[in-house]
Amino acid sequence: MLYEISEKAIQLQNQGKTIIKFNLGDPDLPTPPEIIEAAYDAMKQGKTKYSSAAGEQKLREELANIHGVSVENVVVTTGCKWAIFSLMFLLLKKGDNVVASSPHWTSYELEAKKVGAEFRTLKSELESDWKIDVEKLDDLIDEKTRLIVLNSPNNPTSKVIDDKTFGEIVQIAKSRGVTVLSDEIYSDISFVKAKSILDFGEGNILVSGFSKSFLMTGWRIGYAIVEKELAKMMIKLNQITTTCVPAFIQYGALKGLESRKRIADDIRRTFKIRADAAYSVLSKSKMQFSRPDAPFYLFPKVDGLDSEQFALDLLDNGVAVAPGTSFGDYREHFRIALTVGEDKIKEGLEKLCEALP
Amino acid sequence: MLYEISEKAIQLQNQGKTIIKFNLGDPDLPTPPEIIEAAYDAMKQGKTKYSSAAGEQKLREELANIHGVSVENVVVTTGCKWAIFSLMFLLLKKGDNVVASSPHWTSYELEAKKVGAEFRTLKSELESDWKIDVEKLDDLIDEKTRLIVLNSPNNPTSKVIDDKTFGEIVQIAKSRGVTVLSDEIYSDISFVKAKSILDFGEGNILVSGFSKSFLMTGWRIGYAIVEKELAKMMIKLNQITTTCVPAFIQYGALKGLESRKRIADDIRRTFKIRADAAYSVLSKSKMQFSRPDAPFYLFPKVDGLDSEQFALDLLDNGVAVAPGTSFGDYREHFRIALTVGEDKIKEGLEKLCEALP
Repeated sequence: MLYEISEKAIQLQNQGKTIIKFNLGDPDLPTPPEIIEAAYDAMKQGKTKYSSAAGEQKLREELANIHGVSVENVVVTTGCKWAIFSLMFLLLKKGDNVVASSPHWTSYELEAKKVGAEFRTLKSELESDWKIDVEKLDDLIDEKTRLIVLNSPNNPTSKVIDDKTFGEIVQIAKSRGVTVLSDEIYSDISFVKAKSILDFGEGNILVSGFSKSFLMTGWRIGYAIVEKELAKMMIKLNQITTTCVPAFIQYGALKGLESRKRIADDIRRTFKIRADAAYSVLSKSKMQFSRPDAPFYLFPKVDGLDSEQFALDLLDNGVAVAPGTSFGDYREHFRIALTVGEDKIKEGLEKLCEALP
Repeated sequence: MLYEISEKAIQLQNQGKTIIKFNLGDPDLPTPPEIIEAAYDAMKQGKTKYSSAAGEQKLREELANIHGVSVENVVVTTGCKWAIFSLMFLLLKKGDNVVASSPHWTSYELEAKKVGAEFRTLKSELESDWKIDVEKLDDLIDEKTRLIVLNSPNNPTSKVIDDKTFGEIVQIAKSRGVTVLSDEIYSDISFVKAKSILDFGEGNILVSGFSKSFLMTGWRIGYAIVEKELAKMMIKLNQITTTCVPAFIQYGALKGLESRKRIADDIRRTFKIRADAAYSVLSKSKMQFSRPDAPFYLFPKVDGLDSEQFALDLLDNGVAVAPGTSFGDYREHFRIALTVGEDKIKEGLEKLCEALP
């Protein structure tokens, strides 16, 4: 229902209505100007031709340095989403299954199902601070399980998996012969330190991208860090599908990496202020919610709420949120993305609180 | 072997060797500056956010106007290649088959096989001016055939399918309940008028893009014209894979459409001169070949040639071509892409003629 809300919000905007859009993980902050200028310079220098399906060598080298891997482990992709879809397409056969902790980003489930796999979720709860029950996760794994999908910091809860739990999950995956696919796209801008799958040895998959930590959502550039043989498979699939990420976009991203820390610090600072502002409004309401460990989301709960109906009704009040059902079995929850300015956050959240049943 | 030659050519260049690259359909001409400036302006105006998985409304409208269809029939894609792959992914089940006339662009075959379908080809021959034998094509179709892939003007022969044959193939497809997927990416810059699948009524698929006719190969922007229900399926697949073509790239393409005729005329003029120059060199050799109807390719034949070995050996002489085996059962052929300047064409073709066994 996430995409339906999104389309309806756009329709209402096209009709001239003002919508405060808490429904999308697309920050309002502009792409840093040095990235735009670097992309423009690259265009003018003719970086507009077909380029490598693996990614530009310089960008792969830089990403390899950052993550402490070899260039051959890095594949640049048309967004983090394409990295995940292509990995599922390559690794899953019909009848296989994927295990994930829930709530989870909508796309994991849609992608797994699209390639014919079953998507199994382990529900975590606000009441237990979104802690993943490792034993129960183990119970979900069987001989048809190919991947465990983790997402820390998490969309929609903004929760970071604690180090001990992360380690235990990796250990279970290893003992059961299953690969962990770790989506770490919010990691660079996390308020608290988040472990990476690469901290736990080899053999697993990291996916990430420039969308969130470089404010480049619409540029469609992400990457995967994988074993060399799997990298070759991904590159071959890129050759017959997306071909390459436009080289000038990769040079924009490369420029961004030069100021990686500063850009991430700026984003973190802005979103910390927003999270605190949201916290102060929501604290006065009857919503239950957890303090976010990272940008951009809050995932509050209202007992007895039908969040799909609530999200649709709320659009008429000029506020868009994503219903909890888009992230698993969470009808009483909804997701608020703090991707609008502080004033709008206050205005939107006050409207939202008033509209609560 | 196309990609291996390409990688080896790049390696040799990185070692400081000069390679005249006839191996890629990537014109040397730069993207028109107004397209670059329009993309840059769009970036600065914030067209850097997630955008519609269907494509920007203005671009869809313009493409709908050009092709005489509704906006709902148009889906903007991450290159023409992604349009084709996503259509095959959506329409083909394991065990289905695709029928195509051969020689054919490598990707059709790799894509069909990647989604588990059989790829059946009807061989056409230089000696009969690459004419497609419609009755034989009909014989290849069975109850598992889902698509007939046509490509006029053709890569690698640069041949346009004559109107009568095109009409007969569409008729056969209709009577057998099979959809025609017509890749018309070279159509706008064809030396001779090429019919479109849309000239033969509804129910089929047109794919095209900006790579060739707007010199935007590395920008990755193409589109499909399909029935509305299929468009919805493609859009949903885009949502969970590529998300969108960067909006600023779409605004670049939209600017290109304003000067569509002039840009196409310029390309056509340049490549006509090149084709004539190539013709005059090759006429003096023992190669057989047909005059091209369109940019960018020649697909000559040398009796008894092993074009794979020839292409590898020729790299050592500083010239890259694509072996005929990359386009079907054409070991005695190789593809020359006239995507380098006139002087280089003469120099490269002379080297090539000298190297012939």
